[in-house]
Amino acid sequence: RINGSRLWSAIMELAQIGATAKGGVKRLALTELDKQGRDLVVGWGKQAGLSITVDQIGNVFMRREGTNPALPPIVSGSHIDTQPTGGKFDGNYGVLAALEVVRTLNDHKILTEAPIEVAFWTNEEGSRFVPVMMGSGVFCGAFSLDTAYAACDTEGKNVKDELQGIGYLGRQVPGNHPIGAYFEAHIEQGPVLEDADKVIGVVPAVMGLSWYDCVVTGMEAHAGPTPMHLRKDALQVATKIMQEVVNIGNRYPPYGRGTVGMVQVFPNSRNVIPGEVKFSIDLRNINDELLNKMHEEILAFAEKIAVETGLKIHTERVSYYPPCPFHPECVDAVRSATAKLGYSNMDVVSGAGHDAIYAARLAPAGMIFVPCKDGISHNEIEDARADHLEAGCNVLLHAMLERAKV
Amino acid sequence: RINGSRLWSAIMELAQIGATAKGGVKRLALTELDKQGRDLVVGWGKQAGLSITVDQIGNVFMRREGTNPALPPIVSGSHIDTQPTGGKFDGNYGVLAALEVVRTLNDHKILTEAPIEVAFWTNEEGSRFVPVMMGSGVFCGAFSLDTAYAACDTEGKNVKDELQGIGYLGRQVPGNHPIGAYFEAHIEQGPVLEDADKVIGVVPAVMGLSWYDCVVTGMEAHAGPTPMHLRKDALQVATKIMQEVVNIGNRYPPYGRGTVGMVQVFPNSRNVIPGEVKFSIDLRNINDELLNKMHEEILAFAEKIAVETGLKIHTERVSYYPPCPFHPECVDAVRSATAKLGYSNMDVVSGAGHDAIYAARLAPAGMIFVPCKDGISHNEIEDARADHLEAGCNVLLHAMLERAKV
Ligand SMILES: NC(=O)NCCC(=O)O
Ligand SMILES: NC(=O)NCCC(=O)O
Repeated sequence: RINGSRLWSAIMELAQIGATAKGGVKRLALTELDKQGRDLVVGWGKQAGLSITVDQIGNVFMRREGTNPALPPIVSGSHIDTQPTGGKFDGNYGVLAALEVVRTLNDHKILTEAPIEVAFWTNEEGSRFVPVMMGSGVFCGAFSLDTAYAACDTEGKNVKDELQGIGYLGRQVPGNHPIGAYFEAHIEQGPVLEDADKVIGVVPAVMGLSWYDCVVTGMEAHAGPTPMHLRKDALQVATKIMQEVVNIGNRYPPYGRGTVGMVQVFPNSRNVIPGEVKFSIDLRNINDELLNKMHEEILAFAEKIAVETGLKIHTERVSYYPPCPFHPECVDAVRSATAKLGYSNMDVVSGAGHDAIYAARLAPAGMIFVPCKDGISHNEIEDARADHLEAGCNVLLHAMLERAKV
Repeated sequence: RINGSRLWSAIMELAQIGATAKGGVKRLALTELDKQGRDLVVGWGKQAGLSITVDQIGNVFMRREGTNPALPPIVSGSHIDTQPTGGKFDGNYGVLAALEVVRTLNDHKILTEAPIEVAFWTNEEGSRFVPVMMGSGVFCGAFSLDTAYAACDTEGKNVKDELQGIGYLGRQVPGNHPIGAYFEAHIEQGPVLEDADKVIGVVPAVMGLSWYDCVVTGMEAHAGPTPMHLRKDALQVATKIMQEVVNIGNRYPPYGRGTVGMVQVFPNSRNVIPGEVKFSIDLRNINDELLNKMHEEILAFAEKIAVETGLKIHTERVSYYPPCPFHPECVDAVRSATAKLGYSNMDVVSGAGHDAIYAARLAPAGMIFVPCKDGISHNEIEDARADHLEAGCNVLLHAMLERAKV
């Protein structure tokens, strides 16, 4: 069994880097604060005797050798970047749970046949740079290193420069790093476990996701003298599409999702009719056919509105991954570890994307969910119970040991 | 007759301060660039022999003495602050036309009975600080100096500190400055004159305006795991109100206006359901009863949506002025100057607010419009013809002379 209070302390200590007044964390990918967080975790890895490798997209692997050098490592991890108004647990828990597994093995001087590795992946959140889950995406070849390097934040700073700036532009070619199996522990980020009063979520699959940038171009003009019928109001047109994004999500219960999270209005002055509006669209579904229908519907709607209003509407897909079922053996390893340890459990589909779906393209993978308070995540008030986090980490330990062999 | 090419040169020189790549001007109120613009105009005033007074809200009056010290001055002016993506002519033309009137009187050594003054008023645009038309509003007592001082920009900087910072926190008590009559020349900022192929717009009245800040508060949560029916999506609710603002404008042709110009989404991340959306509402009408109906309708709609959705909606009026008919004698002075000079003309209601409506509370006032290209204003491509600007300035000269007496 792992040490629950040591795990909790590590989470609280890491959460101090970028701590916000409301009890959350703002530690955006590849910022100075991300560097401080990375340095802290790497320092802990070194203290635990792990050897460190950084690849060209800044993914970090911290390795504990096994007794059989021929075996690929059993890897566990997640990410430590956060949302602009993020919580203490999202991602961070998964990395520190994996570290706690290693610390526990060290405490008990347990040797495994396969090596054990703790990983953290670059820019999982996708809030500073798109594509989302960038580090694991490049690692598995979902998109190229050059695509990732070229990604810019809203201030025009690119990933390669920022990686170099914080000292995490490594040498290893992403993906040149064998993996025997991958496990990721994570807070659920939704209300299902808490509602059902279960401790462990066994994750059979992750919803597919489709992200878009939409730009509506009208003509800025003075809000007073310009008669209503002569306007080209980009916001009035954009809000129709924003409404439809949510309508589409509502048309596909229970696993359809439609969200507009980000909006930029230009020039954003109260007495100027907006000349340009840029916004994001996030569509999800557990069924790829339905996700594709949602995709067709939003494109057709934008097209129809463009014809009706005469304004230019440019909709571009900027991220896509299909639904990802996890490997039956890994799902079973999680399920049987849960049963062995006597925790209540249920299956929970993941609505959030995780690095595990990209790791799953290269190796058998599985995930372990624990409840979070009121199902709230991507929010500074995100919270989770120490006993639940401890339970998830125990399940992780046993699932990893089943694959790594003692 | 005034010197049209000297007027044009002055406009072009002032437009270099804060010039944008697209040919516009970004010279927001009380910024370092506003200081540079003010210094340039004040320098020109001194060269023309004018004495300078600055009041406590930063309004500047540049005075040419008359032969009868008992008479109050005939004042003309406008503003030199601009929109974030503003043009060269809005406001700036009115100030420099008044200066050109003085230069012309100097050239011809014409003495007037009443003094002549060139004025420019602080923060007319209202894009950096609310209330709009701040300097003239404080001057006429529409709101207090303390209200104006306390106004903050989006970075939290307040008017008093910024006035001090640029060296335009003057001593004169606003309003302690008699005015005999006030004239303001301005580009129309709408399409009416150009459509009708007329050179001069005689302005009988200005539409009333009502501005609001609306804040919708929901709950931020993760865009993936949060089922549609459990969301409190502040943007989905806010966009309904934004749509209705435009619907209300459309319901009151031809002089109803409804515009949302400014939107801030929080936390503005693509995979976070927005927890808060703040936006501006701009309603206008030439008829105060109808404007009041529009006011009631938007408040009732917001109320209804709050009840329907359960989200908190806070709508606060932040600016209001009623429609303003100008003084018949001043309107006639403009009309007869136009006729005397032989320019084509028509009456044009102003959809934009102007400092003249506040000056009109203390003295007889009138306005002169000239066409602007395609009716476009509050846009970097705002444009106007030199011959039209010259014509407007000639009308201004003759209207002022009629009141100031030679
Ligand atoms: N787990 C998580 O928050 N991932 C970010 C990608 C997503 O939006 O699903
Ligand atoms: N003339 C002008 O642009 N005034 C600003 C106030 C308004 O929005 O009408």
